[in-house]
Amino acid sequence: MEEFPGDISLRKRVGVIGGNSPGPDSMRAAEKMGELIAESGYVLVNGGMGGIMEASAKGAKKLGGFVVSILPGDSPSSGNSYSDMAIVTGLGYIRNPLVVLNSDILVAIDGSYGTLSEIAYAKIYHKKVLGLKTWDIEGVEECSDPGEVINKIRNYFGAA
Amino acid sequence: MEEFPGDISLRKRVGVIGGNSPGPDSMRAAEKMGELIAESGYVLVNGGMGGIMEASAKGAKKLGGFVVSILPGDSPSSGNSYSDMAIVTGLGYIRNPLVVLNSDILVAIDGSYGTLSEIAYAKIYHKKVLGLKTWDIEGVEECSDPGEVINKIRNYFGAA
Amino acid sequence: MEEFPGDISLRKRVGVIGGNSPGPDSMRAAEKMGELIAESGYVLVNGGMGGIMEASAKGAKKLGGFVVSILPGDSPSSGNSYSDMAIVTGLGYIRNPLVVLNSDILVAIDGSYGTLSEIAYAKIYHKKVLGLKTWDIEGVEECSDPGEVINKIRNYFGAA
Amino acid sequence: MEEFPGDISLRKRVGVIGGNSPGPDSMRAAEKMGELIAESGYVLVNGGMGGIMEASAKGAKKLGGFVVSILPGDSPSSGNSYSDMAIVTGLGYIRNPLVVLNSDILVAIDGSYGTLSEIAYAKIYHKKVLGLKTWDIEGVEECSDPGEVINKIRNYFGAA
Repeated sequence: MEEFPGDISLRKRVGVIGGNSPGPDSMRAAEKMGELIAESGYVLVNGGMGGIMEASAKGAKKLGGFVVSILPGDSPSSGNSYSDMAIVTGLGYIRNPLVVLNSDILVAIDGSYGTLSEIAYAKIYHKKVLGLKTWDIEGVEECSDPGEVINKIRNYFGAA
Repeated sequence: MEEFPGDISLRKRVGVIGGNSPGPDSMRAAEKMGELIAESGYVLVNGGMGGIMEASAKGAKKLGGFVVSILPGDSPSSGNSYSDMAIVTGLGYIRNPLVVLNSDILVAIDGSYGTLSEIAYAKIYHKKVLGLKTWDIEGVEECSDPGEVINKIRNYFGAA
Repeated sequence: MEEFPGDISLRKRVGVIGGNSPGPDSMRAAEKMGELIAESGYVLVNGGMGGIMEASAKGAKKLGGFVVSILPGDSPSSGNSYSDMAIVTGLGYIRNPLVVLNSDILVAIDGSYGTLSEIAYAKIYHKKVLGLKTWDIEGVEECSDPGEVINKIRNYFGAA
Repeated sequence: MEEFPGDISLRKRVGVIGGNSPGPDSMRAAEKMGELIAESGYVLVNGGMGGIMEASAKGAKKLGGFVVSILPGDSPSSGNSYSDMAIVTGLGYIRNPLVVLNSDILVAIDGSYGTLSEIAYAKIYHKKVLGLKTWDIEGVEECSDPGEVINKIRNYFGAA
């Protein structure tokens, strides 16, 4: 596993989007997803709140990953505690497109309408979306588990 | 049909969302929808650009309706020409949630990912969405024609 | 005085910016300013809250003017009661630039840092700012009373 | 000087705001300011574009500092090259309040109306602003050189 300093700006960013109140299976998948993202040397970008966001960030931090949270509120402490760089926006739900804009590729896990808005913005901005038990929407590439997702991400970035 | 002045602030607002490049059937449905909204005395809110937005606004203006356009750009003249009140935002696609916030109920006609983002925000903000040949998403109440839509809107507002 | 319908989209828009808690002199000036804006057939744009915003909107409504309020919150009823078209944004203070973008010219009356942010955005967007007992900033054209302001506005629009 | 990893989330953030086209004295002051911020272990937050933003970021990077850029555009590569974490917003000038929200304290150097909008937002959000040859505005604490600024920042954070 690489070391941080200096090269964070060069790392690819993987956005993990998903709901605040997923079931236990999706929580486990999100944590595993975060571990794999960190292990692969990517920055994990998320919305900084609970559920899938917190679980994936926790997984990434466990393996020394770097986590950027794009928060709806205006206080850095309003998000979960697994964040290296909490960016506040004061935009409420309108911050959702910013989570997408700051990701090179997106992974959607579970999720309700907030996640759907992020999937929609990902396609508006022509970004690839991989899915784990999420919205069955044209443009989302459904995968069977976090392992398949990370393989597709590595292939996408051409860094197998 | 009622007269305007004084009571515009009291009128219910119906948001019409839909794509920039729909087929001719959807264009006709959008124009008819605009006519029915104007005839019913509602303000029509839309995103101010082409396709479904322009067709529905054109229909509303034909029958003396009042049209509010929430534009992505920063120039009032950047939208279509069927607008009584063009509101500029300078937010690009990030203006989509503002179209939703300014509507009491939404009608989705045809549409691509921009429309999907607006449907998602409508549900985030707990607003009713009626659909005409649009995304087949939980939370969208599919209707068969503009007549069915306007009846449901009138019932919703309790003003049959 | 002209009648409304049909031509609102063609009317010039005058933004009135100012603080929530001005002194009585500034409140009187704001109300008078609103009257003169309405009398001249311009749309009055403001931030929809209290103080200068409310006083100027009240003045405009007294003489049959049309008032657009760009609100920080997400509920149309969160603003003052002198509004023909309340536009909600959900952006909090970040809605300030939208008040400016939707005005062809600005009048600043009294005001604190919110008003200063709007003056700054007016100059960023290259818009003229007339002032009544407001920030003494390069780029603000200080006037002595509402009458002088409206004369300058009429001259600016070439409609003396 | 401390090492990075792990503690970035705990570091105080100093926002440096200023214009795109300052004179050479202000450019030198900005670079020196960036060096002192990095040396003190603070994260430098800025708007990611040219002039004062670029000079201060360059200074910070020279001494191993961590730089967060809040960009107006939607591409990370649209900013200057001295950034560890480029956050895109797609908000244009409306991103100015986000630069302020993400800073614990602000330093204004030189600057035109963009900087003035940021000073105004800093005061709206009740943040301290230190100045170097910038707007002479109530609420800006003018300093004589970068050394005086960093001393005041250290005192403010209680970490002399």
